[in-house]
Amino acid sequence: MDHRFNRVAILGLGLMGASLALALRAAGGARELAGYDVAPGVAEQARTRGLVDRAHASAAEAVAGADLVVLAAPVLAMRDLLAAIAPHLGPATLVTDLGSTKAEVVAWAADRLPAPEHFIGGHPMTGRERSGLAAADATLYDGCVWCLTPSLHTAPDAQARVAALVTALGARPLIVDPAQHDAAVAAISHLSLLAATALMLTATQDPAWELARQLAAGGFRDTTRVASGDPRMARDICLTNTQPLLAVLDAYLARLHTLRDQLAAQDPAIEATFAAAKAARDAWLAQPRQP
Amino acid sequence: MDHRFNRVAILGLGLMGASLALALRAAGGARELAGYDVAPGVAEQARTRGLVDRAHASAAEAVAGADLVVLAAPVLAMRDLLAAIAPHLGPATLVTDLGSTKAEVVAWAADRLPAPEHFIGGHPMTGRERSGLAAADATLYDGCVWCLTPSLHTAPDAQARVAALVTALGARPLIVDPAQHDAAVAAISHLSLLAATALMLTATQDPAWELARQLAAGGFRDTTRVASGDPRMARDICLTNTQPLLAVLDAYLARLHTLRDQLAAQDPAIEATFAAAKAARDAWLAQPRQP
Repeated sequence: MDHRFNRVAILGLGLMGASLALALRAAGGARELAGYDVAPGVAEQARTRGLVDRAHASAAEAVAGADLVVLAAPVLAMRDLLAAIAPHLGPATLVTDLGSTKAEVVAWAADRLPAPEHFIGGHPMTGRERSGLAAADATLYDGCVWCLTPSLHTAPDAQARVAALVTALGARPLIVDPAQHDAAVAAISHLSLLAATALMLTATQDPAWELARQLAAGGFRDTTRVASGDPRMARDICLTNTQPLLAVLDAYLARLHTLRDQLAAQDPAIEATFAAAKAARDAWLAQPRQP
Repeated sequence: MDHRFNRVAILGLGLMGASLALALRAAGGARELAGYDVAPGVAEQARTRGLVDRAHASAAEAVAGADLVVLAAPVLAMRDLLAAIAPHLGPATLVTDLGSTKAEVVAWAADRLPAPEHFIGGHPMTGRERSGLAAADATLYDGCVWCLTPSLHTAPDAQARVAALVTALGARPLIVDPAQHDAAVAAISHLSLLAATALMLTATQDPAWELARQLAAGGFRDTTRVASGDPRMARDICLTNTQPLLAVLDAYLARLHTLRDQLAAQDPAIEATFAAAKAARDAWLAQPRQP
């Protein structure tokens, strides 16, 4: 399956979209790159830096003549983007996205696009805590698992072409149901985000913070890293993956309450809780990588 | 102030103690190194690998003739270690420790040592998620803040000599009150440990884990890293820093419940919560390093 496209339009030139532009260039995945960003001047800046060949002032303009459109905006922005580009897509234009949640995006696409068979949702399992064009990195997608979430409408050929591109970018495509994707990322990425956010706020508003900030080292830095991500992206995750995230957050709160009970009772059996978490993490790290 | 000692006894040859042996060698901080570990064979293994010059079968034997004794065991083990070595210390032997919590250790030392003026508590703010002799790293202490917690008994000269050694090891001594130390590390290290532990257990027991474990990447790995530490060390932290840790855990639970309310209400203002955490973390990372 050919992984090369003639013109790829990237809508959203933050960390994910701009890194995709760099990766597409490196992999020879696009003869021409068209870019659009809702923030004034960003697309032009991407063009000046050579990330894209053409900077467009609107999403509609950017997708004209494209054979692949990649939506790389925060999830909620995709709803309007899909509606905005729908009248301007060619009859065979493929559309995919890089959004953090999938069930809603896939539903919007089915609802708004003229040819839902040419849409497949996507979510590369990678990221950085820094955001924006300036954080772009050609190696961002190297070796990552890249979820592809077909709907009932998605044509096998559309799936195969996008999967071939993902492979050409050095990532590993994994076909997965949108709702199952959302439940899985709630348990890992989205709960991590809430845990790190609450941890950062708790620590910095603690009476001991003035001393603690001088003592905080690698452990605290790593545990809170994802709290430095884009707040808008985090908001959209909460607004589009609410129920799965509530379910894992409640399970997390229950775990913490159990730990609190063991702590308050000075129960030495709390060691077994730590040992179980360590064993679970060590087993996860030791698991064979997906082919 | 001279940072060199004649004979240093290290009691406990896990990650912290064994790394200290390597760092002492590199810094020329000890003419001779004596080692003891409660686990059979570990001291002998350290001797065979050249980390220590002499392997001892008991703590009492290891401290004989030492002018500096460093306790490098999990916190609760220090209570018995202090009692075991007390009768065998020379009249001028300095004693310090590397334990995660300080108020209890300092109190035990005052209670058990024949010359409490020669004791000063210590806690280097560094670590690795791996533990044991095999994880030893000569650079573990490079550049870290190393808390020194004198008691009311500690002689200025004892403090100055241990501080000189810490500086010679490439670390930055910070003199701090034991109780203030414990409150500060509860808010950063110990709460991080509980948060990461509960996160790891929640994720791995989630119905979606089979898929999630394939998708989990850098964010999840970093957020849970400290959950791979030594369970016994974690237990002793909980048993010796109970009240400060309960206080920050309750603050953390309150934060999470606030986030849960915003999530359940699909309140777009949750973005401000994420933005506040990001701003707090970015400000912490940007703060000038302690001299």
